[in-house]
Amino acid sequence: MADGFTLWFTGLSGAGKSTLAQLVAAELNRRGHRVEVLDGDEVRTNLSKGLGFSKADRDTNIRRIGYVCKLLARNGVIAIAAAISPYREVRDEVRRMHDRFVEVHVKCSLGRLIERDVKGLYKKALAGEIREFTGISDPYEPPLNPEIVIETDDEPPKASLVRLVTTLERLHYIERNGLP
Amino acid sequence: MADGFTLWFTGLSGAGKSTLAQLVAAELNRRGHRVEVLDGDEVRTNLSKGLGFSKADRDTNIRRIGYVCKLLARNGVIAIAAAISPYREVRDEVRRMHDRFVEVHVKCSLGRLIERDVKGLYKKALAGEIREFTGISDPYEPPLNPEIVIETDDEPPKASLVRLVTTLERLHYIERNGLP
Repeated sequence: MADGFTLWFTGLSGAGKSTLAQLVAAELNRRGHRVEVLDGDEVRTNLSKGLGFSKADRDTNIRRIGYVCKLLARNGVIAIAAAISPYREVRDEVRRMHDRFVEVHVKCSLGRLIERDVKGLYKKALAGEIREFTGISDPYEPPLNPEIVIETDDEPPKASLVRLVTTLERLHYIERNGLP
Repeated sequence: MADGFTLWFTGLSGAGKSTLAQLVAAELNRRGHRVEVLDGDEVRTNLSKGLGFSKADRDTNIRRIGYVCKLLARNGVIAIAAAISPYREVRDEVRRMHDRFVEVHVKCSLGRLIERDVKGLYKKALAGEIREFTGISDPYEPPLNPEIVIETDDEPPKASLVRLVTTLERLHYIERNGLP
């Protein structure tokens, strides 16, 4: 129970990072772990107000989330970050801050994201109304060797949750416990 | 052991906040607590790069430290902040984020600080070479009702440590244990 780690979700906007982060947080809580979710949007308010979406500002934002995750993880907490975190180099820098780090690529095709477009952001980005939008007008560098890949084109969130938790068990980050 | 809280040191530059924070962290560690020290200078690198020393920027810096302390404290860690934190209102805002918050005013007369001037900063501030220097050219608003006041004009750090730990015991933030 005392062994914290950081579970880092990376992926495009709308791919399902926050949903999955909340589901896995609830399940890990249920199993008695201490859990904190650092969600990109909330963190921008608390740690990164004033930062924009240039590469430098995005990197700074990710470094700050990474620093807080590190502090939590080394104190026995499972720190769950859900942030687009489009740049590989800074993700790897955050990984190197940690003893125990699990990168989860939440992967969804751009076609499906544009089709769903829950928040209407892709429409605006495609119309040029939002600049520096990851996947449309700004780069996304997928992880080369993530611990876990979750494809969310067709998989419903609860199925992704099961795969995620099972993988964490298999990697010995959490104990085998059985989903409810 | 599981009850985290935040121990917040406020006071002028050179008053002894960092020294005392490190001493108390070591003692609490020895007693088996999980402890993190968020020191003003280190935090400026990790959370607040780019911020200056205007009231707005100082307040933002303190809010960020407060947010991280809150996350740690609610996960059973004793979060120790050592930052000048000159403004009362934002300190009280940080207090309100917390269930358990102990404010420690590390108090030293300006005369003695100028006399000691370990880092040579007061000399520079008095010469006008550093602007916005708390206590000289920038305000310091002392806490009106701190849980603990440590006067460091004449008291050596180890004596302050004993008083601090004894007070934490008496306030039931930590168990009575006896200093070594």
